[in-house]
Amino acid sequence: MAHSLLILNGPNLNMLGLRQPEIYGTTTLPEVEAMAVAHGAKKGVNIECRQTNHEGALVDWIHEARGTQDGIILNAGAYTHTSIALMDALIAAEVPAIELHLSNVHAREDFRHTSYIAKVCVGQICGFGAAGYTLAIDAMLATLEAQS
Amino acid sequence: MAHSLLILNGPNLNMLGLRQPEIYGTTTLPEVEAMAVAHGAKKGVNIECRQTNHEGALVDWIHEARGTQDGIILNAGAYTHTSIALMDALIAAEVPAIELHLSNVHAREDFRHTSYIAKVCVGQICGFGAAGYTLAIDAMLATLEAQS
Amino acid sequence: MAHSLLILNGPNLNMLGLRQPEIYGTTTLPEVEAMAVAHGAKKGVNIECRQTNHEGALVDWIHEARGTQDGIILNAGAYTHTSIALMDALIAAEVPAIELHLSNVHAREDFRHTSYIAKVCVGQICGFGAAGYTLAIDAMLATLEAQS
Amino acid sequence: MAHSLLILNGPNLNMLGLRQPEIYGTTTLPEVEAMAVAHGAKKGVNIECRQTNHEGALVDWIHEARGTQDGIILNAGAYTHTSIALMDALIAAEVPAIELHLSNVHAREDFRHTSYIAKVCVGQICGFGAAGYTLAIDAMLATLEAQS
Amino acid sequence: MAHSLLILNGPNLNMLGLRQPEIYGTTTLPEVEAMAVAHGAKKGVNIECRQTNHEGALVDWIHEARGTQDGIILNAGAYTHTSIALMDALIAAEVPAIELHLSNVHAREDFRHTSYIAKVCVGQICGFGAAGYTLAIDAMLATLEAQS
Amino acid sequence: MAHSLLILNGPNLNMLGLRQPEIYGTTTLPEVEAMAVAHGAKKGVNIECRQTNHEGALVDWIHEARGTQDGIILNAGAYTHTSIALMDALIAAEVPAIELHLSNVHAREDFRHTSYIAKVCVGQICGFGAAGYTLAIDAMLATLEAQS
Amino acid sequence: MAHSLLILNGPNLNMLGLRQPEIYGTTTLPEVEAMAVAHGAKKGVNIECRQTNHEGALVDWIHEARGTQDGIILNAGAYTHTSIALMDALIAAEVPAIELHLSNVHAREDFRHTSYIAKVCVGQICGFGAAGYTLAIDAMLATLEAQS
Amino acid sequence: MAHSLLILNGPNLNMLGLRQPEIYGTTTLPEVEAMAVAHGAKKGVNIECRQTNHEGALVDWIHEARGTQDGIILNAGAYTHTSIALMDALIAAEVPAIELHLSNVHAREDFRHTSYIAKVCVGQICGFGAAGYTLAIDAMLATLEAQS
Amino acid sequence: MAHSLLILNGPNLNMLGLRQPEIYGTTTLPEVEAMAVAHGAKKGVNIECRQTNHEGALVDWIHEARGTQDGIILNAGAYTHTSIALMDALIAAEVPAIELHLSNVHAREDFRHTSYIAKVCVGQICGFGAAGYTLAIDAMLATLEAQS
Amino acid sequence: MAHSLLILNGPNLNMLGLRQPEIYGTTTLPEVEAMAVAHGAKKGVNIECRQTNHEGALVDWIHEARGTQDGIILNAGAYTHTSIALMDALIAAEVPAIELHLSNVHAREDFRHTSYIAKVCVGQICGFGAAGYTLAIDAMLATLEAQS
Amino acid sequence: MAHSLLILNGPNLNMLGLRQPEIYGTTTLPEVEAMAVAHGAKKGVNIECRQTNHEGALVDWIHEARGTQDGIILNAGAYTHTSIALMDALIAAEVPAIELHLSNVHAREDFRHTSYIAKVCVGQICGFGAAGYTLAIDAMLATLEAQS
Amino acid sequence: MAHSLLILNGPNLNMLGLRQPEIYGTTTLPEVEAMAVAHGAKKGVNIECRQTNHEGALVDWIHEARGTQDGIILNAGAYTHTSIALMDALIAAEVPAIELHLSNVHAREDFRHTSYIAKVCVGQICGFGAAGYTLAIDAMLATLEAQS
Repeated sequence: MAHSLLILNGPNLNMLGLRQPEIYGTTTLPEVEAMAVAHGAKKGVNIECRQTNHEGALVDWIHEARGTQDGIILNAGAYTHTSIALMDALIAAEVPAIELHLSNVHAREDFRHTSYIAKVCVGQICGFGAAGYTLAIDAMLATLEAQS
Repeated sequence: MAHSLLILNGPNLNMLGLRQPEIYGTTTLPEVEAMAVAHGAKKGVNIECRQTNHEGALVDWIHEARGTQDGIILNAGAYTHTSIALMDALIAAEVPAIELHLSNVHAREDFRHTSYIAKVCVGQICGFGAAGYTLAIDAMLATLEAQS
Repeated sequence: MAHSLLILNGPNLNMLGLRQPEIYGTTTLPEVEAMAVAHGAKKGVNIECRQTNHEGALVDWIHEARGTQDGIILNAGAYTHTSIALMDALIAAEVPAIELHLSNVHAREDFRHTSYIAKVCVGQICGFGAAGYTLAIDAMLATLEAQS
Repeated sequence: MAHSLLILNGPNLNMLGLRQPEIYGTTTLPEVEAMAVAHGAKKGVNIECRQTNHEGALVDWIHEARGTQDGIILNAGAYTHTSIALMDALIAAEVPAIELHLSNVHAREDFRHTSYIAKVCVGQICGFGAAGYTLAIDAMLATLEAQS
Repeated sequence: MAHSLLILNGPNLNMLGLRQPEIYGTTTLPEVEAMAVAHGAKKGVNIECRQTNHEGALVDWIHEARGTQDGIILNAGAYTHTSIALMDALIAAEVPAIELHLSNVHAREDFRHTSYIAKVCVGQICGFGAAGYTLAIDAMLATLEAQS
Repeated sequence: MAHSLLILNGPNLNMLGLRQPEIYGTTTLPEVEAMAVAHGAKKGVNIECRQTNHEGALVDWIHEARGTQDGIILNAGAYTHTSIALMDALIAAEVPAIELHLSNVHAREDFRHTSYIAKVCVGQICGFGAAGYTLAIDAMLATLEAQS
Repeated sequence: MAHSLLILNGPNLNMLGLRQPEIYGTTTLPEVEAMAVAHGAKKGVNIECRQTNHEGALVDWIHEARGTQDGIILNAGAYTHTSIALMDALIAAEVPAIELHLSNVHAREDFRHTSYIAKVCVGQICGFGAAGYTLAIDAMLATLEAQS
Repeated sequence: MAHSLLILNGPNLNMLGLRQPEIYGTTTLPEVEAMAVAHGAKKGVNIECRQTNHEGALVDWIHEARGTQDGIILNAGAYTHTSIALMDALIAAEVPAIELHLSNVHAREDFRHTSYIAKVCVGQICGFGAAGYTLAIDAMLATLEAQS
Repeated sequence: MAHSLLILNGPNLNMLGLRQPEIYGTTTLPEVEAMAVAHGAKKGVNIECRQTNHEGALVDWIHEARGTQDGIILNAGAYTHTSIALMDALIAAEVPAIELHLSNVHAREDFRHTSYIAKVCVGQICGFGAAGYTLAIDAMLATLEAQS
Repeated sequence: MAHSLLILNGPNLNMLGLRQPEIYGTTTLPEVEAMAVAHGAKKGVNIECRQTNHEGALVDWIHEARGTQDGIILNAGAYTHTSIALMDALIAAEVPAIELHLSNVHAREDFRHTSYIAKVCVGQICGFGAAGYTLAIDAMLATLEAQS
Repeated sequence: MAHSLLILNGPNLNMLGLRQPEIYGTTTLPEVEAMAVAHGAKKGVNIECRQTNHEGALVDWIHEARGTQDGIILNAGAYTHTSIALMDALIAAEVPAIELHLSNVHAREDFRHTSYIAKVCVGQICGFGAAGYTLAIDAMLATLEAQS
Repeated sequence: MAHSLLILNGPNLNMLGLRQPEIYGTTTLPEVEAMAVAHGAKKGVNIECRQTNHEGALVDWIHEARGTQDGIILNAGAYTHTSIALMDALIAAEVPAIELHLSNVHAREDFRHTSYIAKVCVGQICGFGAAGYTLAIDAMLATLEAQS
């Protein structure tokens, strides 16, 4: 049966394409999500995408993934660096997760170098912009294959 | 008149019983809440229980307790360690509160040793699993008695 | 055309007037907001006021201000000290913002001395209680004038 | 057979009732110990109480508990924050222990937020004054029951 | 009787208008002081302005304000971040003081985020350039009014 | 013309397949390198692979890449966390680089959370074992495409 | 009635005169104590001197001073820097205390710059060798006089 | 020949007697200096007293003491905690110095626990108010006697 | 004349053989001491062994070694990491000392990486279990030989 | 036209030659200044030398150099490590500056390793005693030449 | 069959005997190695000795020991404190290792108190000069015996 | 006899002239070395220049300088901030050394403010680009002259 993956985008990612286009490009979040879904289709996986600016909603959605999704690709935005609740949610969900960032957070301000969710994720991909979503889908498939 | 206590459970506590049952047991949150209500009934106190994964909702509910509840038993989960907003909400509510944790947070990762809400709570109980809720009710009653 | 300013109040500010009146006075948030609106009218600016205890809602509202408001006056309460998401939201909104606090946060506990949003705000006003809102409106008008 | 519990009180707890009675009340340590013994009797457990101001004596007594007591309730006072020897003693004794404090140490000076013994205790109860001893007995019984 | 306010400018503020005019503008310190005096006149308060690059002179002048001035507006420049002597002087003077900065110090280097004088000032205004002096006068008047 | 990529493996990566096979699998470094070369061939890029345990040799090889390679995929192993020399070498080489790790370094000891080379790399991929090399090649191609 | 003062010497002070005589001189502890008693006699105060290497014994003796001594002169030696128990004992004793050191601890290793007992002592005298005991007696008399 | 001692008082000590008389008493600096001179006369030493709020003036005066004074009693006030220049001046002067404080600085804010001048002073006396000056004269005489 | 060495064992070492035998083996402290005495006899040195859980007793015994023992082998257990008093006692004793630990303390928790006594010991041996005592005797003999 | 350079010496440098001659030699500040002037003459540059122990005076003199001097050679002594005001003054002066120290400050106490002025100086020369002044003049000339 | 041990000496140990002979003695590294080989012969073990100043060479040699040596005695010199690569190499080699230092590194500068290799070594011997090599051979034999 | 100096350049300095020419200029390392040799010839000193990217090679070369060179000018590049081995090598070589940097490292990232080699060098010169080599030769000659 086809794998099913959940792509979660956290705070401020809804502004993609509008915000600082000279840096982030003019691709919007719906366009990025469409590209991810298309890439999933090509690989034979179902992709579901959601975005919220609320930490609690991310926790809720991660819980929902328990037993219903095969993997989570989580771009938690700024909550990456401050949310222990997301870390605990990922433990509770028992679904493999990949940490994703558009920018190379390790090359930015010091407070973006800390990640609570890294401690419970399979791996991390950052710095490749929209292409990171495609890479994360491939990485998750490799992970699921290695585990099976 | 009978005392009325509010038991608030924060992020990820809705997963109790499902998550890592070999550690946390198979008792679910509704069962824990039922035990607390029953213990309250035996002691002649009304117990109201709520859970949310949203920090803002915890703040809202603590505000509502002002003038309507005699005490708050707060298991703020991961927000314990990061939320100054909860600390400020407890000050504003002017209702005595007890900090509760299922696990012994002081024996876990360093980032779980910090508690903003401790600074404005009567006391703390941690490490006794579901039994902690019963102990917290007894502790709150002893506190209210000592104040009266 | 008249300037339009958004005044956002964060967690626990809905308790103004109820909480510790010997310190904060008995003026309520609606009264403070009415004073701000009146001061704006006198200066020929439209003032819109909102309050929430939810970090995510503040992020949502800051996004909405993009292209619709000329300035944001943000009293983020306790989220000031912990929220990188608000900082990122202000960057994305591309609207000038002023950081406001009722109390002199720099004279209080150490954890209130840190502000993520300060890094992306025009300036900061703190310690003047309700009068701070009027000062912040004047400060924003001076800022807009200097930029035009 | 009836459980047997050892209650150990560390430095300065012999001054209970004399010291700052407006804060700690006028109940003396012998009275608190008598209450604990009485509560134990009601629950069908033998309670033995000892107090010392000497770190080494606490270590000696914890060793003695090995194989002779079912649980230790340890109010190590100021040694809580500085004694690695007590931590090691508890490991060597292989008897479940509960950390107890009269005051809410987490709401006091920073140097009282650190506990070496927490790392090897079942849980912690603090902030409930003399009532804490009764709560700790109940907590230990719940712990022993859960382990059996 | 009319209020009397002392505006003190510390190290390097004599260079205003000369230094980095593309950033700080071409308004000189005498011009800023004249604007402050004029604004004071409009509000019915006497304004006295002084500047020095010597920490000791600032201490001397703060002492002189005791019993002779109703308020101090202090832009202590770089001494803000290093001078405990200024903090002690403000305590000794027993005159309400407002901390003022031309730039938003909280958005600059880390060593400019610390302020010893903040601990003893009514409030802080920063980031609004020369307009900050006018805002500070208004803020002081609001403070004096609230205290009377 | 076909892109040419340099894959550099640092200290201890020659032990791959021998070391802790239950964790890292039995795939050896030559096998991993062969997979990378094959993946490159499929994508139409030339892949050159080298390994050394000497920090200085890595610096030498990075210098050689200047003007001769289109991208560097650098798994610097333990030198990631301690070598400023590698960071400076990457700046001097002026070739885009991707930081690669077999394990999720952010989930391991604290001293593996720091990366000097991250500050000058396009992005980072970690936690996906041998599959990371394939992902890194794809990521580099996406990067080169975005820059062209 | 004549004042009665307790002089307590902590760990290693029994070695005075034997240890490093080129630094500490050849005066032994009994000789220092005799000088203190003689100085007390001249001033009309009773001086009692004790020494121990046991932290717990110091705590015991400080407790005994409650209600029986007018002041404590405490040279706690190395326990100064590590003992919270001594600090708590002084609070419980409710007898004014002076902190004394033979050497200038602030000019030695960093770990000798911290003093827990300083927080609850009237003042501190250090660096004057055996003469410090005489100075401390005079300082205590001045303190008692100022309080009466 | 009679010894000659220099008593230097630093920033804010000119406010003694005026500032917070309920804490510091109503004795003014001239009165304290007169008491010191009188005590010196009784002991057969010449006492010269100076006060300034300028760090540079303290440095100048310490230099002047070289070869002209037998000892310096230095109450450097807030400069104690921040001035390396005073430390270097004392080294250059090659005159024995005693560090003096009216209050017990070790029982106050953390930033008052650091003393640069302690590293080069004979000893420290703090916490005894005006009586500290008399004690410091006696301590200096004991020091000079021990050195001769 | 034969050398005479004192072997001191600190807190919790009396539990050797009882505690966690799967880790520490079933050799008890008396057996270890017998082995040390026997090894000493073979090498022609007298070995005296003592154990205590009291920091003060260790200080007392180190003092006694002054002038009566040729060397001290000190396994101070947990006091290694917290006791400045032991460090000072070793300085006062003026007897060469070797620091000994059963386990490799540097491979355990961070708080076991600090040693106050290391600063005044000849050297350190750790991680070799009971064999460490024999090694320490040999090391002390080599040290004494090198000094003679 | 000939370049004009300002050599500023800060606190305690007036004691050169008197202070610790076995370390600093017997050359006095006037002699060092004469050597600098002579070296300048040989190179065709005017050299002006000033010394003060007052931080504020250094700030004043740096301001005066704006537009009147081609370069500043600043030996700020102890103010190097604590003065943000000097850093700001150098920015305001817009004259290239070289940081100079007689001793190798990086080989001394930790608090001498920090330099606020380094952030705004062209470079630093330290450790070469009086010869450093000559080197600094040469370095400034090389700097001015490279900029022209 | 006879055990085979590898003794590795890192940076600067080739200078033994030349460097600071008043401290380290005049025994050269070849002499120390000869003593170690002789001691091995007496104990029936083969000893191989190597020295290098290159971190990478140490890594290479540790790898070679895998499956060919029974134990490694590693004096990594200054790389002890900075090399994570050596730590990883020891893990990969799966050969028991002992950390050795000539001097008591714990009694020297703070940066010599950290050891990355300690985390993966059996134990540590330091402070006994050349005699440490003999002790380390004995310690390794005891270790191998305990494991067999 | 003519002095003989060794100029050592560490990692990445071989890229001089190629790398970021707009910052570092187009002068290559061979050209800089030729300038140094020429300047040496003018001053009557022999100059030998070497460069390597290997930390171990720098250690080797510093050892070789023992007894064969009169001084070392060491631009250790990035190893300055991380290499304790170089510090130890300089101690072992017993040849006076000067620390040199092209850029003003104290005005760059924090991790470039630390220098292990500074602790054992005569002095430091930084920020003057290629001219620094000439200055360093002059500084070394002044140092050698002062020592002779």
